[in-house]
Amino acid sequence: MLKVGLLGAGRIGQVHAVNIANNPRSTLAAVSDVNTPAAEKLAARHGAVAQSSDAIIADPSIDAVLVATSTDTHSDLIEAATAAGKAVLCEKPVDLSLERARACLDKVGATGKPVMIGFNRRFDPNFAALRAASLRDDIGKSELLSVTSFDPAPPPVSYVKVSGGLFRDMMIHDFDMANFLMGETPVTVSAIGSALVDPEIGAAGDVDTAVVTMTYADGRIAVIKNSRRAVYGYDQRVELLGAEGMLQVTNMLENTVVTSTAAGVSSAKPTHFFLERYMPAYAAEWEAFLAALLDGAPLPVTLEDGVAALAMAEAATESLRTGSPVTLKG
Amino acid sequence: MLKVGLLGAGRIGQVHAVNIANNPRSTLAAVSDVNTPAAEKLAARHGAVAQSSDAIIADPSIDAVLVATSTDTHSDLIEAATAAGKAVLCEKPVDLSLERARACLDKVGATGKPVMIGFNRRFDPNFAALRAASLRDDIGKSELLSVTSFDPAPPPVSYVKVSGGLFRDMMIHDFDMANFLMGETPVTVSAIGSALVDPEIGAAGDVDTAVVTMTYADGRIAVIKNSRRAVYGYDQRVELLGAEGMLQVTNMLENTVVTSTAAGVSSAKPTHFFLERYMPAYAAEWEAFLAALLDGAPLPVTLEDGVAALAMAEAATESLRTGSPVTLKG
Amino acid sequence: MLKVGLLGAGRIGQVHAVNIANNPRSTLAAVSDVNTPAAEKLAARHGAVAQSSDAIIADPSIDAVLVATSTDTHSDLIEAATAAGKAVLCEKPVDLSLERARACLDKVGATGKPVMIGFNRRFDPNFAALRAASLRDDIGKSELLSVTSFDPAPPPVSYVKVSGGLFRDMMIHDFDMANFLMGETPVTVSAIGSALVDPEIGAAGDVDTAVVTMTYADGRIAVIKNSRRAVYGYDQRVELLGAEGMLQVTNMLENTVVTSTAAGVSSAKPTHFFLERYMPAYAAEWEAFLAALLDGAPLPVTLEDGVAALAMAEAATESLRTGSPVTLKG
Amino acid sequence: MLKVGLLGAGRIGQVHAVNIANNPRSTLAAVSDVNTPAAEKLAARHGAVAQSSDAIIADPSIDAVLVATSTDTHSDLIEAATAAGKAVLCEKPVDLSLERARACLDKVGATGKPVMIGFNRRFDPNFAALRAASLRDDIGKSELLSVTSFDPAPPPVSYVKVSGGLFRDMMIHDFDMANFLMGETPVTVSAIGSALVDPEIGAAGDVDTAVVTMTYADGRIAVIKNSRRAVYGYDQRVELLGAEGMLQVTNMLENTVVTSTAAGVSSAKPTHFFLERYMPAYAAEWEAFLAALLDGAPLPVTLEDGVAALAMAEAATESLRTGSPVTLKG
Repeated sequence: MLKVGLLGAGRIGQVHAVNIANNPRSTLAAVSDVNTPAAEKLAARHGAVAQSSDAIIADPSIDAVLVATSTDTHSDLIEAATAAGKAVLCEKPVDLSLERARACLDKVGATGKPVMIGFNRRFDPNFAALRAASLRDDIGKSELLSVTSFDPAPPPVSYVKVSGGLFRDMMIHDFDMANFLMGETPVTVSAIGSALVDPEIGAAGDVDTAVVTMTYADGRIAVIKNSRRAVYGYDQRVELLGAEGMLQVTNMLENTVVTSTAAGVSSAKPTHFFLERYMPAYAAEWEAFLAALLDGAPLPVTLEDGVAALAMAEAATESLRTGSPVTLKG
Repeated sequence: MLKVGLLGAGRIGQVHAVNIANNPRSTLAAVSDVNTPAAEKLAARHGAVAQSSDAIIADPSIDAVLVATSTDTHSDLIEAATAAGKAVLCEKPVDLSLERARACLDKVGATGKPVMIGFNRRFDPNFAALRAASLRDDIGKSELLSVTSFDPAPPPVSYVKVSGGLFRDMMIHDFDMANFLMGETPVTVSAIGSALVDPEIGAAGDVDTAVVTMTYADGRIAVIKNSRRAVYGYDQRVELLGAEGMLQVTNMLENTVVTSTAAGVSSAKPTHFFLERYMPAYAAEWEAFLAALLDGAPLPVTLEDGVAALAMAEAATESLRTGSPVTLKG
Repeated sequence: MLKVGLLGAGRIGQVHAVNIANNPRSTLAAVSDVNTPAAEKLAARHGAVAQSSDAIIADPSIDAVLVATSTDTHSDLIEAATAAGKAVLCEKPVDLSLERARACLDKVGATGKPVMIGFNRRFDPNFAALRAASLRDDIGKSELLSVTSFDPAPPPVSYVKVSGGLFRDMMIHDFDMANFLMGETPVTVSAIGSALVDPEIGAAGDVDTAVVTMTYADGRIAVIKNSRRAVYGYDQRVELLGAEGMLQVTNMLENTVVTSTAAGVSSAKPTHFFLERYMPAYAAEWEAFLAALLDGAPLPVTLEDGVAALAMAEAATESLRTGSPVTLKG
Repeated sequence: MLKVGLLGAGRIGQVHAVNIANNPRSTLAAVSDVNTPAAEKLAARHGAVAQSSDAIIADPSIDAVLVATSTDTHSDLIEAATAAGKAVLCEKPVDLSLERARACLDKVGATGKPVMIGFNRRFDPNFAALRAASLRDDIGKSELLSVTSFDPAPPPVSYVKVSGGLFRDMMIHDFDMANFLMGETPVTVSAIGSALVDPEIGAAGDVDTAVVTMTYADGRIAVIKNSRRAVYGYDQRVELLGAEGMLQVTNMLENTVVTSTAAGVSSAKPTHFFLERYMPAYAAEWEAFLAALLDGAPLPVTLEDGVAALAMAEAATESLRTGSPVTLKG
């Protein structure tokens, strides 16, 4: 039974709290949040105590912490928790600064403690099934990957300004998806992008619509498309073309009703946003973390994976600025 | 090169004329119609002559006739043409009277000439592929057949009054489809039906919505659903459940455009009506007729098949009247 | 906070236990089972006590009981629990005997206590959305309902022998679905059926493949198809044709991966069986029961509904035996 | 009635011959080919005469020529035919040399004769319906276009060597599709590509897998993906994301049969290759050419369009060579 401290009682912290509490192999012992009443409320719901993050990290009875705080605190908390001998599951991204994230990686390496980054999409049953099919060699050698990832609506500009930009904030999931499905990191990253959805996003120095192309050492190719707005819902699809076929993940729909009228044939929209789409993924992610800690399974997403995705985001940001492809350092 | 006389220059006769003329192994030599200008116009378009049906049947240079006249003339024309030594492809149904159709079958048998009934749906690439899969044993022994067949809109009541009723006019196609896919005729036929679409159809003594269930000697089951109105288009589907799986034919759509908006995800309607859906089937039907006459292939739909479907329509009509299942005579 | 006693700790009882315990407005206080260790184990998992059914019913602190015991105990437990002043949610069917179920209805009526029957499919998000669309008049007046309900594999013959037969055990769900979607009970019921899947089922006097057609007072029509075996998974679909269109519920698939190879295009199978397909429905069912008890919402499925479905099952059983349609008494 | 000379009796010439001959407003008068027997055979089938291209162009009774010869002859034939006063429909591409194509455009401009380039995909009912929906403003302002275009199998390397490369030979269709759907030409073109399918293609200096990204003056974005090999068939899809939704064209399938077994749910493959997929498009293309010549409709694809697509292919070729985006001259 793993005793867990949850750092962060916001929207995503609440999702994790349920999974920690419902899993028969873990118990939610403590919750922290800068908003103390939020921590107290969430703790009460699951029979846990509300404490400061420092107190949780200092508590020797806590085996692991789940970091679901704001991004700017991630590196510090990872370092503190691993230094205190705890295993860590940290929400993405590791940091907005690649340099800081690499420093964190060095420090954690010295402790030898396991740190998993919460790239939840790897645990989505659909993407996981696609990868299993690829590893089973259902389509032969993969050649061309396409990732489509559109949010239903743009975030407030105030959020955009502190987000680190579309590549670090949103496309980082897709960079990790590419690493997950291609089995290696790319050699070059090339980005184009515009503020088409909201001119305020452009005024804030960011883009809301972007395409990144990447090449791999053996010539393989990946394309990622992002938009901050798909009015029909959360659009999360992948296509992997291989020598012997193609694998696709299509969207999950809100329901399976089909309506045929004189106006046409219509079906439900994709599930609205990430909480609806990825709720099963969050539970599977927690299960995988427990399997790594308790059963000796390999850690399915490492801190190195988090740093790798961040390096790709930084390269894409630079490519967008310069208008030229960026070569990643090996 | 088969020299062909076409009896009937209406809508369906015009479809056949194109297929006869375009096929490199047949030529359209003559066209008749009670409406002489219609025959002349169609003949002119294909380099044929307009003549009376009698003259066509009497012309020794004509090898085969295609009967696309009104139903009440079918039996007489089949008998006259076969007596004159011609092969015949006749539109369904053979006759509205089962007794008359059986008499026709006897007369034709004495001539030994080939008579094919135009159950065009057997030649639809989708239904043909389903049957091929069934014969390939893709789903093991078939157990339960469902045929859905809805027209886009009801015909005029004036037509309904002379049509012989829904079972002889519309469901006869589905009775033949059941025979085609189950490989035998049923033992019992049970019908329910109502005039839900148009009360005038009810006032004319017919129904516009009906379900027929049928049982086979070995216990297998078939269901046919008919409606005179599906406002979204021509709905033509089949499902065959077997011991090792299910085969389905779904509708063909007008195009493959999918539109996703805040209102939902919509696609095109099914192809509008039988001419759109079954145009390739009519060409394949003619090809199959030529293959039987010129290559010695077996006749794919016989006059016996036409009589069998008519017997099922008559049984359904009686079952609807009496409220009880009707047992077919072997 | 509703204090609940759960009678029956088997497979379905365990599903209900989780929903009772997870819902913030109910608590699982006690569990009974003829297999005492099963009751104790389930009770322990949810902080409840294991007791006899009699003790639970006699406990004045228990507000409601959920009956998930074997069918032959349902009527007695409903009567005892309501006599003791408790609200009841009882798994389907009410009883295998229509006479006994009607007597139960009379007794319960005298107590005035609410009894809901667990026709879980009404709470499936897909069927619920179809009904909402129908009530919204998306397809105009409904005319022709088709329900397809195939299990993945037949139950053991030992179960079949005590099940009351396919119509009472399996199709009863579909009879209720018809009542749910058509908004009234039918006037006539006509059944055909065979033992095609397993001859042992036939030897036990039951069928494993069946089709029932039903007519309504205003001429509308419904068809239900059942098979005990669809090797591709749990097949649960509905089609409702109306004057202005058609509504369909299609199957939910295990995942959204599509694989295209030289062999064709393939996707995942339907979810395996009722626990996978209807897990969200069970939670929604419990939520609806709470809404009725605590918020004054109308009871969404009544004991009368349970008796009505049973009357249809009995009529279908008789129709299969006699080969003739059976008229339901109003 | 337009009298037409067909230059080129190869595979695509034969398709055009049927459409010219079947259309009631055009007649096929003459056919030429470097392979004289091929011209004679095709001419005979349609009641035309076989002649040299020079003789056809010199024949004052011929109104229009359809150029379906090898690419290296296109510019010369377009110039000669327009100089002789004829309207021209010429297969794509105009030329492999952008300079030569521009010179051709200048010469043709001086004659004032209409020249249409055979970008057949504009006339595919699916792509045409997508564009109509976009023009109808079904999805608001378009923002992000994705074109997927995979051939079923690579051509022989001998063909690759004289093809002008993937961008001029294959992706040129997709460049025109982008111009068709975006309504303007892009500002920048950036390409990546590899020889993943066949190393011989790489040895010949070409690629077989490529992705091109393009930006537009107002910030809009387009992505084109090409592969010479999709073993499951001809993959021809488009997605257009707009401010108020998304439009997609999905593949047409060989038939609508769906097979569900214990192994999964499978459907037919996409139509095999361009002749199957685009047969209706070729007929519609000819119809549109006639409408422009005979009814005064605007020419739907101009020689300018052909030159614009070629300029994009040349830019992509240069971008692939240099590894940097190429800016198109206005």
